[in-house]
Amino acid sequence: MSTRVRRTSTQLADGRELLYFDDTEPYLSGAAVRDAVDSRPLGPRAAAGTMRLDFLTGDWVAIAGHRQTRTFMPPADECPLCPTGVGTVASEVPDRGYDVVVFENRFPSFATVATEPEPSDDPMHTARPAFGRCEVVCFTSDHDASFASLSPSRARTVIEAWVDRTRELSAIEGIAEVFCFENRGREIGVTLSHPHGQIYAYPYVAPRTRGVLARAQTHLEETGRLLGADILAAERRSGERIVLSNEHWTAYVPYAARWPVEAHLVPNRDVPDLPSLDDRERDALATTYLELLRRLDRYYVSASGEPIPLPYIAGWHQAPVREGRQAARLSMQLLSVLRAPGKLKYLAGSESGVGAWVNDVAPEQVAARLREVAS
Amino acid sequence: MSTRVRRTSTQLADGRELLYFDDTEPYLSGAAVRDAVDSRPLGPRAAAGTMRLDFLTGDWVAIAGHRQTRTFMPPADECPLCPTGVGTVASEVPDRGYDVVVFENRFPSFATVATEPEPSDDPMHTARPAFGRCEVVCFTSDHDASFASLSPSRARTVIEAWVDRTRELSAIEGIAEVFCFENRGREIGVTLSHPHGQIYAYPYVAPRTRGVLARAQTHLEETGRLLGADILAAERRSGERIVLSNEHWTAYVPYAARWPVEAHLVPNRDVPDLPSLDDRERDALATTYLELLRRLDRYYVSASGEPIPLPYIAGWHQAPVREGRQAARLSMQLLSVLRAPGKLKYLAGSESGVGAWVNDVAPEQVAARLREVAS
Repeated sequence: MSTRVRRTSTQLADGRELLYFDDTEPYLSGAAVRDAVDSRPLGPRAAAGTMRLDFLTGDWVAIAGHRQTRTFMPPADECPLCPTGVGTVASEVPDRGYDVVVFENRFPSFATVATEPEPSDDPMHTARPAFGRCEVVCFTSDHDASFASLSPSRARTVIEAWVDRTRELSAIEGIAEVFCFENRGREIGVTLSHPHGQIYAYPYVAPRTRGVLARAQTHLEETGRLLGADILAAERRSGERIVLSNEHWTAYVPYAARWPVEAHLVPNRDVPDLPSLDDRERDALATTYLELLRRLDRYYVSASGEPIPLPYIAGWHQAPVREGRQAARLSMQLLSVLRAPGKLKYLAGSESGVGAWVNDVAPEQVAARLREVAS
Repeated sequence: MSTRVRRTSTQLADGRELLYFDDTEPYLSGAAVRDAVDSRPLGPRAAAGTMRLDFLTGDWVAIAGHRQTRTFMPPADECPLCPTGVGTVASEVPDRGYDVVVFENRFPSFATVATEPEPSDDPMHTARPAFGRCEVVCFTSDHDASFASLSPSRARTVIEAWVDRTRELSAIEGIAEVFCFENRGREIGVTLSHPHGQIYAYPYVAPRTRGVLARAQTHLEETGRLLGADILAAERRSGERIVLSNEHWTAYVPYAARWPVEAHLVPNRDVPDLPSLDDRERDALATTYLELLRRLDRYYVSASGEPIPLPYIAGWHQAPVREGRQAARLSMQLLSVLRAPGKLKYLAGSESGVGAWVNDVAPEQVAARLREVAS
């Protein structure tokens, strides 16, 4: 597996940044360069909206009215994530092919250019520009692929892109947390089927991260140990919910899983974020993550025996950029709302109303199935 | 409007409690009694499962494997919430008609009979029986009705039932919070279309309630005022997001709304829970809540001009039973995931992963529409 990647930063017609991460020739060596020009008449780029403080909960909520008009399941020949000229239209990627690309979202919830809220005299009504950055990560130029179908070396390039983006976005003043994630499947509202993920750089520490961090800080003060490390150690002692483990990584179904299918993938070494992983850990991550994803796509089987590709959300919980880093520990959370073929888990009154979760599936059962479908 | 209701407690074949709340003759006066017997061969009642502590977040998660087999959208003539003999089968309600009934859920997430977890030596793996109670509230025997189509006097009876259940469930030792709610619409996973709501009596203060309460307690210490009262006062001063208001109640779209359609309905007087409402407030609630629900069913209109019944979750945030009652203030939260006709808001990576919410609709727009569709 090659860890060599060439990174080229370019601009789209409306000024948004687009980055190529090349792992193949002739671009890797520089024998050819990424100089295709985005010639679409895009007009000015969309600013992000505002964010408002919810006084009841203390959480910020982004208000992004302009996103209502975003692209919704276009026909395959109008896919904005395919390379330009493949199919019939000019896409978000000007060149005629790519390995991995990252670009700023055209309809961003957070952006470095954001709307100044109307001034308010009322202390209960606090708003700020939704400052931050939202990026799209295209895993491959192949419209019909999936993350699980990538080669290990391409998955490794995606990891390099996550590392690069985490570093760069963390360096922007005012960014508090960088979250790399993938939404996959119509069942969770994915509006573009081309294999891609997203990166959100938030101007605040997100609510779940804040809550977990507060507990991790208390745990560190009380025990001198990392909460994430103690949870991993407990899963290893028990063994019941371990899905896979190797020299560098362990995947397990959490003891108190909330979702009908949920797995956490964590490094065996204490690290706060993706950039802190060394080369061997990144290499191992590529193959380990692919193995986990491939098992998920064998998790459910249709009545006729065909595997059912699992809709999922996979997200990297990294240490916040500027606070609490000594207590945080990197982990990937993968969850699915599919509780049986054709049956979704909905967040109804108990979950959406008061945050009280009910899981209809025993975590040990999920882990057993994820071991059973090993390749 | 009559506030007179006769309450009769009975038992189903498996020992679960069923309560009739009668507001019509001959049952109201006692000229006839509710003595129909449930003759179904039900077998022993299902115990609730266990609940596990999520060490990362500090939240309890109920693990209820047996609920996977619960009734899923039966044909109308097998509706378990219709009165027995209406249609072809014996239902959950033994009598041949009813006004409002409440009974213990056959597939409960929480019950007074719950499974003892396997003992664990590991402090990171803490489980308890999912002790509590889950009840179903049938708003009417009319399968094709909805809450919005109830008469004010029937809505008033439902309110009496909520008050009665809040009082009784609060009196059970070990219950920490009582949550009355309605899930409406297939879009949010409702598996029975007969108009009904649910009541969950939790053995812990639910996560959202706990978070809001902590902020309300700080606010009370710092200002001497209730957080809920100050939020209401700020909405009244601004006026922009007020949906309706009368002598006893105010409905508004919250300043930092998370959902594409969201409204909070709160009493004008500081009260902690439904039982604390006086008769005039309960009378006014019946008509005010019906008006709000009817507006919601006119919120979206199809291409051909037909109103689209709104899928929604409506839940009553009441003070916990035993703690922090002096800082809490009653409010009803109503939310919908429908962001446009045929388009749902999904909780994808940002919301489900790190709890960072993005709302695509401006709260002022929602409030304006909810004023526009007043009857």
